[in-house]
Amino acid sequence: MSVGLSPPIVVLPVKGIRLSSVCANIYAKKRTDLTLIELSEGSHVSAVFTRNLFCAAPVQVAKLHLQEYKPRYCLINAGNANAGTGEQGIKNTRSTCLALAGLTTCLTGEVLPFSTGVIGEILPVDKINLALPELIKNLSSNSWLDAAKAIMTTDTIPKAVSKEIVFGDTVVTITGIVKGSGMIRPDMATMLAFIATDVNINKDLLDKILLSAVNKSFNRITVDGDTSTNDSCVLISTSKAKNKCINDEATTEYKLIESEVVNIFCELAQAIIRDGEGATKFLTIEVKSGKNEKECLAVAYKIAESPLVKTAFTASDPNWGRILAAIGNSGIQDLDINNVQVYLDELCIVENGQRAPNYAEAEGKRVMLQDEILLTVNLGDRGECNEKIWTTDLSHEYIRINAEYRT
Amino acid sequence: MSVGLSPPIVVLPVKGIRLSSVCANIYAKKRTDLTLIELSEGSHVSAVFTRNLFCAAPVQVAKLHLQEYKPRYCLINAGNANAGTGEQGIKNTRSTCLALAGLTTCLTGEVLPFSTGVIGEILPVDKINLALPELIKNLSSNSWLDAAKAIMTTDTIPKAVSKEIVFGDTVVTITGIVKGSGMIRPDMATMLAFIATDVNINKDLLDKILLSAVNKSFNRITVDGDTSTNDSCVLISTSKAKNKCINDEATTEYKLIESEVVNIFCELAQAIIRDGEGATKFLTIEVKSGKNEKECLAVAYKIAESPLVKTAFTASDPNWGRILAAIGNSGIQDLDINNVQVYLDELCIVENGQRAPNYAEAEGKRVMLQDEILLTVNLGDRGECNEKIWTTDLSHEYIRINAEYRT
Repeated sequence: MSVGLSPPIVVLPVKGIRLSSVCANIYAKKRTDLTLIELSEGSHVSAVFTRNLFCAAPVQVAKLHLQEYKPRYCLINAGNANAGTGEQGIKNTRSTCLALAGLTTCLTGEVLPFSTGVIGEILPVDKINLALPELIKNLSSNSWLDAAKAIMTTDTIPKAVSKEIVFGDTVVTITGIVKGSGMIRPDMATMLAFIATDVNINKDLLDKILLSAVNKSFNRITVDGDTSTNDSCVLISTSKAKNKCINDEATTEYKLIESEVVNIFCELAQAIIRDGEGATKFLTIEVKSGKNEKECLAVAYKIAESPLVKTAFTASDPNWGRILAAIGNSGIQDLDINNVQVYLDELCIVENGQRAPNYAEAEGKRVMLQDEILLTVNLGDRGECNEKIWTTDLSHEYIRINAEYRT
Repeated sequence: MSVGLSPPIVVLPVKGIRLSSVCANIYAKKRTDLTLIELSEGSHVSAVFTRNLFCAAPVQVAKLHLQEYKPRYCLINAGNANAGTGEQGIKNTRSTCLALAGLTTCLTGEVLPFSTGVIGEILPVDKINLALPELIKNLSSNSWLDAAKAIMTTDTIPKAVSKEIVFGDTVVTITGIVKGSGMIRPDMATMLAFIATDVNINKDLLDKILLSAVNKSFNRITVDGDTSTNDSCVLISTSKAKNKCINDEATTEYKLIESEVVNIFCELAQAIIRDGEGATKFLTIEVKSGKNEKECLAVAYKIAESPLVKTAFTASDPNWGRILAAIGNSGIQDLDINNVQVYLDELCIVENGQRAPNYAEAEGKRVMLQDEILLTVNLGDRGECNEKIWTTDLSHEYIRINAEYRT
């Protein structure tokens, strides 16, 4: 199941990036499961990682490598998270980086490793290393879609977004792929996301764009409130486009590229939700007129992660009582419930903390039957902060997937 | 479905308490749904209520009445929560208290109102008031079990616990009933719980016992992390027993009665979990060697409310990776994951933050197949705090109940 999501049709190559994917027999089913992304020399890489304390071995190694080196390769396997594997996990990850370095001209530290899949299993290093020569041989600038497929786990659809932007007489490209479907409550990053652009921009500004974009996209989604051990989000600029290097955030060029990267991040983040485990609805939750980001997000996530609200959406039941209970449970001590309004799309269902006088349940039902619903909560005149997050409902299919996965 | 729970067999009357239940046609199905508990004159009443900001009209009225009066009646309806009903809800609740006062010799303020059921529907005051004469006529000291049935909503089994305690040459009785199955993450109180004793004790000490008992029982359970708008827990002492009034918490008598009340509260709270919506497992989660209560509970609740951990339990899958991910996600910034141990019953599955060397998955599966499982997390030598909570798994039946309820 997925909501309003089709496989990507056009995925544009990015100058300076080549990719390949092979079947290394890591994933439970036979399919491509090992991916290599090659970055041309001089590429800048910004990345953020999970804040889960149990962060996986590849996350630990990738963070160290990023501190000291400019990456030339991202090596990604699906089917095994290499998390909860202790010192052996670190050794195994390092050994794959070392093997790749031996087969190319790069240093071990110039490889960023990524893993996604089952937690607690030992990484099959031999399978990975055995597949490296073919992986290197197949590198091509046109393999983005293949890579989007090869990094999937419980995803049902490969996710990629691509765009060309005209910069005066130069055209720059941004292309991104992402995977993720369950264990989705990213915290400073998402599952695995790789976004590359050929735009010529300095590293500090690339870092700035990454943080801004992550905060508006992958840090605004939740499927089940569970933060993964392997979340990683990587933004690459190869600087191969002919634009004059962007060095100043006050320029039109910076603003344009930032805005386009944010849009692509949002589209990728929303794709994760649209393909969320068992999703039958794509829900946007917007909280308005809060004092600050913190309280708006507290309300939004409390609603988004309430099993009772989620199951009401599954049933297309306009159960505003459950929504009010979630709002009241979000920990804002001085909220005056008599000022709260709730809308389904444009339909006001709660006014002054109770059922809106003109609200007819049949109208609520009509909106709830849609696949895509905007739930807006207005907290009253507390402040001017508005925040938006995206989530799914909670269906039988979620239970089936997660009670069957790994067994 | 319920786990290890049978209908109560012996429910002892408490001197000074009479009860009755009738069918007032409030609940969706035809069954008893209106209950009256009469307290003899001079009874002490301690109570705690939900901290959800959207607290229901009866909660607001009961709190006010308690501040000024010594209650003589608890009036409880099932099938309608009278929550999210604004000023009209308050008026409706008051009107039922007024009607009851008119038919008895008590003041309106001496009635404590309670409601449980669907949020956002107008309370059917006429149906309630019409049923009051019969309700009063039927009052009997032997109707505890009938009351336990009449306050149920999605509960599948009535819940009551009863005990006699010998105090030298006096026997005192404690009897309690409780309802609740979903929207269970009590915060300073639970769904509806009424516990009465005839022990002679002063009001301050009764308050103290209530807080202590709630904190060890109803504030240690979660089904779905959703805190209800109507949670209320009432502890009554009628002082009809012949024991010398307990006025000092340093006495053996105080310690004995406190300990017995705590036990009864725990048994009632656990009954809610055993009858939790869709429960197929009864899970005890104990977190040991934490610095303080706060961090132990943060870890315990993060595990208990993780949909991925809950569905793994449904599948009897010893998926320790999901448990580690939940621990790592509980917000304790200085936790050293390399010191963490996890046990299923006596079986060590995680040692030093990774799979225990001697752990065999078949052994884990054997424990996971049980109906009742103790999950112990040792945080390492952080401190001496241990905390225990109780929860359920997350099954298809939970989704079915909550996607069908109200529709």
